[in-house]
Amino acid sequence: MKTRAAVAFEAKRPLEIVEVDLEGPRAGEVLVEIKATGICHTDAYTLDGLDSEGIFPSILGHEGAGVVVEIGAGVTSVAVGDHVIPLYTPECRQCKSCLSRKTNLCTAIRATQGKGMMPDGTSRFSYKGQAIAHYMGCSTFSNYTVLPEIALAKIRKDAPFESACYVGCGVTTGVGAVVNTAKVEPGANAVVFGLGGIGLNVIQGLKMVGADMIVGVDLNPAKEEWGRRFGMTHFVNPKDVSDVVAHLVELTGGGADYTFDCTGNTTVMRQALEACHRGWGESIVIGVAEAGKEISTRPFQLVTGRVWKGSAFGGARGRTDTPRIVDWYMDGKIEIDPMITHTLPLERINEAFDLMHAGESIRSVVVF
Amino acid sequence: MKTRAAVAFEAKRPLEIVEVDLEGPRAGEVLVEIKATGICHTDAYTLDGLDSEGIFPSILGHEGAGVVVEIGAGVTSVAVGDHVIPLYTPECRQCKSCLSRKTNLCTAIRATQGKGMMPDGTSRFSYKGQAIAHYMGCSTFSNYTVLPEIALAKIRKDAPFESACYVGCGVTTGVGAVVNTAKVEPGANAVVFGLGGIGLNVIQGLKMVGADMIVGVDLNPAKEEWGRRFGMTHFVNPKDVSDVVAHLVELTGGGADYTFDCTGNTTVMRQALEACHRGWGESIVIGVAEAGKEISTRPFQLVTGRVWKGSAFGGARGRTDTPRIVDWYMDGKIEIDPMITHTLPLERINEAFDLMHAGESIRSVVVF
Repeated sequence: MKTRAAVAFEAKRPLEIVEVDLEGPRAGEVLVEIKATGICHTDAYTLDGLDSEGIFPSILGHEGAGVVVEIGAGVTSVAVGDHVIPLYTPECRQCKSCLSRKTNLCTAIRATQGKGMMPDGTSRFSYKGQAIAHYMGCSTFSNYTVLPEIALAKIRKDAPFESACYVGCGVTTGVGAVVNTAKVEPGANAVVFGLGGIGLNVIQGLKMVGADMIVGVDLNPAKEEWGRRFGMTHFVNPKDVSDVVAHLVELTGGGADYTFDCTGNTTVMRQALEACHRGWGESIVIGVAEAGKEISTRPFQLVTGRVWKGSAFGGARGRTDTPRIVDWYMDGKIEIDPMITHTLPLERINEAFDLMHAGESIRSVVVF
Repeated sequence: MKTRAAVAFEAKRPLEIVEVDLEGPRAGEVLVEIKATGICHTDAYTLDGLDSEGIFPSILGHEGAGVVVEIGAGVTSVAVGDHVIPLYTPECRQCKSCLSRKTNLCTAIRATQGKGMMPDGTSRFSYKGQAIAHYMGCSTFSNYTVLPEIALAKIRKDAPFESACYVGCGVTTGVGAVVNTAKVEPGANAVVFGLGGIGLNVIQGLKMVGADMIVGVDLNPAKEEWGRRFGMTHFVNPKDVSDVVAHLVELTGGGADYTFDCTGNTTVMRQALEACHRGWGESIVIGVAEAGKEISTRPFQLVTGRVWKGSAFGGARGRTDTPRIVDWYMDGKIEIDPMITHTLPLERINEAFDLMHAGESIRSVVVF
């Protein structure tokens, strides 16, 4: 079949909207009509050529929502007409990782996914006879896409696509880091570094679980209003204090119970660890650092009880946990709509990247 | 009263055995007759002048066992004749840390302890009229010493002093890191870096909790026999492999569930983290690094599920957990006797430091 898609033919070049060829689903695969997709920093990271493992040409996009159109042989967990969220972190429920009960990082199709291929080692997309790579196993910048069954979360049908798509990455990454990775308890004090699309979701996750003090840290004073909108109780601009770590330790009465880095800046990651309370404070790295950058600290910080960990896709098991987060949204426990600052048609998708780079959007969503 | 003690008059000078003056216990304090004391690397670290906060003259020693001789006003938790282990990590059960239920690092008397003083800001030791500092709140290199009540663990009377004293630091630090900090589960795979007095106790802790694979790593091939003696199942000498991390990941089938640094070397600490399994491996820093040294890694290691934490005094609450470890020893669940390679009278205490520096002892114990 033919489908409209925004294709990344080369790094550092705008996406081109073209009609590409799409093969139907093979065994264990599913054809999905994407109804809406968010544009995330990770897409920009790849498009800007910063990811040394980036593959071109490819169809980017990993934060979508849509409807099952056709299922391949042997598919049993979704049916035609089901509403689904594509998962860049699948959940096979069979591999060592899934069975460990300790991680969400399913490894069933990791090797081929990283190469831009379906699990059988081929691509379903092509343009003028040339194969086009899949991206993060999703390629939601295409109106129709093919995914492995294990990479689809079935969600309720009354959830709007244009907000549910954000659960496919940003919402789950932020809220999940609080709920699954840190397991923050009611009454905890927390600090969130970086109040972008992830940080705001960390904040509303903290509010949902009943944290007491929710401190937001950002260099941009305009972010204070955004943070407070979702439950932030205190705002700190590092430009306004001489020593941000000392200030945060003082503010939180000895250090935070939990801190979250949502900046990707390794200097900030260190500050986040060192702003933790002696004895038990845990710092969660969420942001993705530039290639080659390292984090460091004195080991004394760990020996005296601070814990350094990270979170990918909010520690959420894709098929099990993502539908619950959609429920939380539909039940009003968390918000999504106010974070979606821009909605655009596919033809204007490059504007969404411009808005992100200019810091003018929290999240832009393309609707097909 | 007068008591024999090995006094550290200056850094980098042998201890001197002299008779010092000891004041009796004030309110909340206890006079203890030390029957045996281990000599630990931390004592050497201070004596060698490496600790920038070291105080002289002082009476070192923090790994002892003895008998309560006299109690001060208001003391209720121990009585004359009780057998006790002095605690450099006390347990007041009242401070924010003790009440957090998340850490063993009681802060009740931290400020004065760090200054070599009793909680009221004075010392009980003096020599020729000059005050001598307490050390780590213990000063077990004195035949008699005074401690706060909250810094004494009451242990069973049938435990020999010359082995029970080792529970005051090394045994608890190693076994406790497994049981309290890492909470290792049966069937886990673990790697222990550094097979000295702490590492061997980590190994026997792993054996006690039912770990499957217990890999020991040491540059000294003579340590293999020591490791196997306490439950090590595999030995790796970094000199024998080209890439120790890759070798350990291969050996453990993808990385260890738990790794423990018992070296204090920050390069090894990084290896220990990176030898952890993707998704869930936890690395515990136990060793104390040189002043100014830092640990570092790529944040990707954390984002993909590895956890970096530390352990002090094995995460053990001094008064609550230490007596249980003595029970485990008496019940044959762990061993202590074979690790005590040398027993000396107080007069020969400087030989114990020489043996440690020469790598000839696992643990030397002075009996009074």
